[in-house]
Amino acid sequence: MTNRKKPRGAGEQVSELTAGRLSVYLRCLNTLDTAGVKTISSRALADQFQLNAAQIRKDLAYFGEFGVRGVGYYVKELKRQLRAILGLDRTVRVAILGAGNLGLALADYPGFRQEGFEIVALFDTERGKIGRRSKGGVSIHDTNEFRRLVKKERIDIAVVAVPAESAQTVVNAAVHAGVRAILNFSPGTLKVPPGVKLKHVDLTVSLESLSFFLARGEAGVIET
Amino acid sequence: MTNRKKPRGAGEQVSELTAGRLSVYLRCLNTLDTAGVKTISSRALADQFQLNAAQIRKDLAYFGEFGVRGVGYYVKELKRQLRAILGLDRTVRVAILGAGNLGLALADYPGFRQEGFEIVALFDTERGKIGRRSKGGVSIHDTNEFRRLVKKERIDIAVVAVPAESAQTVVNAAVHAGVRAILNFSPGTLKVPPGVKLKHVDLTVSLESLSFFLARGEAGVIET
Repeated sequence: MTNRKKPRGAGEQVSELTAGRLSVYLRCLNTLDTAGVKTISSRALADQFQLNAAQIRKDLAYFGEFGVRGVGYYVKELKRQLRAILGLDRTVRVAILGAGNLGLALADYPGFRQEGFEIVALFDTERGKIGRRSKGGVSIHDTNEFRRLVKKERIDIAVVAVPAESAQTVVNAAVHAGVRAILNFSPGTLKVPPGVKLKHVDLTVSLESLSFFLARGEAGVIET
Repeated sequence: MTNRKKPRGAGEQVSELTAGRLSVYLRCLNTLDTAGVKTISSRALADQFQLNAAQIRKDLAYFGEFGVRGVGYYVKELKRQLRAILGLDRTVRVAILGAGNLGLALADYPGFRQEGFEIVALFDTERGKIGRRSKGGVSIHDTNEFRRLVKKERIDIAVVAVPAESAQTVVNAAVHAGVRAILNFSPGTLKVPPGVKLKHVDLTVSLESLSFFLARGEAGVIET
């Protein structure tokens, strides 16, 4: 990742929330592009995807002037720009630690490949799994091979999909191998040294927001 | 879910973002409670978990007066209140549609059970899977049985973990069976009628926020 051209605004603090919203905008633009839409205003983008128009303008303005007065945004061009800001203008190489159900599901998750992520390898300690492949064709390697393959395959991101009790050991191994970005699916708190970004995915949060909706009892008859 | 006591603030608009933050606060309080912490100020809570103290006070104030001047929040009591607001003061019953790697991983995801969700059943169309169980013991039923079991087992939430091309069909079946809250892991846009809440989980967003971090090139030597 050295000698890489930094996007505008680099060096300043941009929150993870902003990064999350940029991802959502990119997803919306993909949908529009597929539908053949050429240009869109922040207002129309907000209306169609239930977003906030002022927030869209603010988020994008931070990285440059993408809108054209009276036209809005050029869909393909804004897509290209967002992909560059998100570091998706090159292939991002990913290794998954843990070839259980979750690891295998993530290895073949269609959204990853679509956005330019390449799932390079799965790793597991279970003899019976090593040498096999996910349905989508990702090879399962011995965890002992992890450090060597991180270097050889230039892995950018490690995904942790092992049981909670092994998670910290696996994270330490990833850090030791030189991985600087880790996506963790295991429950519990994990530690990484400064300079390494650890992102925790807690699937419970999504389920709880539905439970919250049900608890608020906005009943009403369901029409299909 | 009828005859359920509505939490304070019910009937007004509370954003999904707020619900998401309440979930995060609950997760933090769980950690504190396990560590034996009895009381905590919004400031200390924010510092320890990298949250925003003003936002915490604002979010909680919306639902009532939980803080005590000079003391802060009583951890156990606030936990109980947050669980009630999130509808977790009773068991929330969940069915998973699709018993592939993702469905099986979700069925046994430890975080769900911990917060009071009960994964009641998995559903699949593949003959070879029907009658079997996930590692954690969740039975796999024939999708044809779905409607009957939703009523019998009083399913609150359906989780969609089928390939993209089957997702809308499965969502329609869930709505038709009377399910009012759906968590979708399939890519692509899905439609539900008014009165049904559909939440989409896009795992790509998490990976993109790491890619964003790497692209901004905050290099530095990693010390382990």
